[in-house]
Amino acid sequence: MVTARKAILIGEAIGKIMSDVPTGEVERISLMNASGRYLAEDLIANADVPAFDRSLYDGYAISAEDTKLATTECPIEFEVVGHIGAGAVFHGEMKEFQAVRIMTGAEVPKNCNAIVMLEHVKELKNEGRHFIAIDEQIPINEKIFKKGSEISEGTLLVKKGARITPGVMGLLATFGYSEVLVGVKPKVGVLATGSELLEVNEPLAPGKIRNSNSFMLMAQIEMQGAQPIYLGKLEDDLERSYTTVEHSLKQVDLLITTGGVSVGDFDYLPEIYNRLGAEVLFNKIAMRPGSVTTVAKVQNQFLFGLSGNPSASFIGFELFVKPVLKTLLGNMEPYLISHKAILAEEFPVPNAYTQLIRTKVKVEGTKLFVSSNGLNMSSSITSLVGAEALVVLPPSDVGYEIGCVVDFLLLSEEGQKDCHFTI
Amino acid sequence: MVTARKAILIGEAIGKIMSDVPTGEVERISLMNASGRYLAEDLIANADVPAFDRSLYDGYAISAEDTKLATTECPIEFEVVGHIGAGAVFHGEMKEFQAVRIMTGAEVPKNCNAIVMLEHVKELKNEGRHFIAIDEQIPINEKIFKKGSEISEGTLLVKKGARITPGVMGLLATFGYSEVLVGVKPKVGVLATGSELLEVNEPLAPGKIRNSNSFMLMAQIEMQGAQPIYLGKLEDDLERSYTTVEHSLKQVDLLITTGGVSVGDFDYLPEIYNRLGAEVLFNKIAMRPGSVTTVAKVQNQFLFGLSGNPSASFIGFELFVKPVLKTLLGNMEPYLISHKAILAEEFPVPNAYTQLIRTKVKVEGTKLFVSSNGLNMSSSITSLVGAEALVVLPPSDVGYEIGCVVDFLLLSEEGQKDCHFTI
Repeated sequence: MVTARKAILIGEAIGKIMSDVPTGEVERISLMNASGRYLAEDLIANADVPAFDRSLYDGYAISAEDTKLATTECPIEFEVVGHIGAGAVFHGEMKEFQAVRIMTGAEVPKNCNAIVMLEHVKELKNEGRHFIAIDEQIPINEKIFKKGSEISEGTLLVKKGARITPGVMGLLATFGYSEVLVGVKPKVGVLATGSELLEVNEPLAPGKIRNSNSFMLMAQIEMQGAQPIYLGKLEDDLERSYTTVEHSLKQVDLLITTGGVSVGDFDYLPEIYNRLGAEVLFNKIAMRPGSVTTVAKVQNQFLFGLSGNPSASFIGFELFVKPVLKTLLGNMEPYLISHKAILAEEFPVPNAYTQLIRTKVKVEGTKLFVSSNGLNMSSSITSLVGAEALVVLPPSDVGYEIGCVVDFLLLSEEGQKDCHFTI
Repeated sequence: MVTARKAILIGEAIGKIMSDVPTGEVERISLMNASGRYLAEDLIANADVPAFDRSLYDGYAISAEDTKLATTECPIEFEVVGHIGAGAVFHGEMKEFQAVRIMTGAEVPKNCNAIVMLEHVKELKNEGRHFIAIDEQIPINEKIFKKGSEISEGTLLVKKGARITPGVMGLLATFGYSEVLVGVKPKVGVLATGSELLEVNEPLAPGKIRNSNSFMLMAQIEMQGAQPIYLGKLEDDLERSYTTVEHSLKQVDLLITTGGVSVGDFDYLPEIYNRLGAEVLFNKIAMRPGSVTTVAKVQNQFLFGLSGNPSASFIGFELFVKPVLKTLLGNMEPYLISHKAILAEEFPVPNAYTQLIRTKVKVEGTKLFVSSNGLNMSSSITSLVGAEALVVLPPSDVGYEIGCVVDFLLLSEEGQKDCHFTI
């Protein structure tokens, strides 16, 4: 009646998925719309930064050598022979003991090699001529941002696959990329299964719950930079469910289902995979929550069969769907980042499977501590709110004590610090 | 010629800004579009979760008392008298030693108080009747997710002002919020100043640089959940600049300018504030970069005069604009989160002003380390890419040694771990 399934390890499951992910498509879009997208080409400096010796302050450009003998007692006077606003260029010739008034960001004139700030000179007018007095020796290159000193032309600045954050956006603008090649947002379909599911606008009824996973998953997909497509619910009828899945696959790049992958009487997905001729990569993982997570492939198309339980579904997305989406978007480091922290709570119960505990990461002093964020159950939804990471507890006969050093996987998108969960 | 400005402390500057921020507007939108928005009302549980005693597994619902004498040698038989799929409800009456087949998530029938998993029973058919054999004692409440055990009706789950992350999205759906009250995205205008600025699609020319700050700021505004509006560049003409600012203020909730706030000959903003009758909250802060940052108010409208230098402009946004945007969006904790870390680099130069160093946060073992992320200059753009935090170095006559414990402020949006900066 119940077919035994072979549980594989989390790493093995990820390996099977990632061994053959297709290349994502790319498109060229306006920089104005590129925030949050993923670079589909390396960002290489096409010019020096600065592109010329630039004044760092409002002041006077001079030759540093001319200040060699300047002291408070014996200031040296310079005649001001020009004025350069930012964006302007001084074309005159400069002689000894001459200065040019210069604004922040302007190009330092030839023959000048130092800037004296406005605040550090004394201004003098004499018969319509304009002088400044400098009362200290000024070092060469003082207050000058030298050509190429920040970036030299040809430098690889940001790699293909990086997300376009505000800093990357600024760099793209600096180098004149008014259009930028980015990964096309993969279309990710979400299909819920289960006759207990009500739509979000329906009133509660005996035995029923609302379809919350679809909304959660769509938010996860969107935050990952992909395009979520809600495909509704599968009915408790194998024929119609099969047709819906087959039709759905034509509309999307990859398909996520929630529920229907276990051994229950209405868990039709295993049979649907069979009819589709899909290759089932695995249908059981040695982890909790989410042991029933199933991943199948029809040609190049992934079908992610996530658990119907909220925590299991959320974690299944983070561990298995996210690296595929990142890879499709060109990201070379698609996996969750792992760090170590100190357990601030005991987990005394032995477990044959690896446990993934939703956690906040607390910083005390300069150290990191983790403990569970609400109810540690597959069916829990509250434990996801404000969860910043997943603590990884490998199988153990004795459980884990307070103070153990454990690994955790960072969930960058959910862990918004401004979310105040109060349970 | 140069008017002395009084530098105030960072905290004092933030205090002046935050002492009077208007309340933001709210709107009701479809849950489908609410990901990443800010809740404008508390999210309160309008039902228990679970709303009924729910089966955690596919199995059989029984009365635990009936298994009291069950052993491997002497299993006890139960007659299966019904079948409940998820979403269905069992309406029959149950007698002793009877069981109902039940699927994960379904409502546990009255008179039952335990679930035995499918995998743990032996199925028997006898003259068309269906029996199961149980060979161990089952505890009361086994594999049942009790009504209200995760959330009880009336609980405050997420506070007004929290961002709608995937977990919050799932909670909203759970409680049937098909529409949700969120903060209206504040309209934030961005105006660049400086005749040295080229548009991003213009070729480089002597003395010129491209307008990179506007793109960076627009990405910062967008990531914060507000609506950026690019208003172009101010010209180097006071009259026309004044008209542009006056006109811009009518289109936006708040206005950011970059550049033009220093003491240079074309820094018109101080005079523009004067003509607008704006109250200048401060025009110098004891910090580097960004000491010239100026904030003014015309009635209820903020004018943020950020520096024209990229790092100074970025930091000015994070410290001074972001808490205003968060407050407008209803967030009760609008400030950057501060933690402590160990300096992995020395900063030997004395500084009279507080320094804010762009940094990545490294985790080694379970401890946090910080060091500068690229060139530590106001004019640097590369140091922003991949920066995860700002190290705060208060004024010091001797600088800071490796190993010092210092504060840092977390920059949640920029610090995307998947950004690979290679300089």
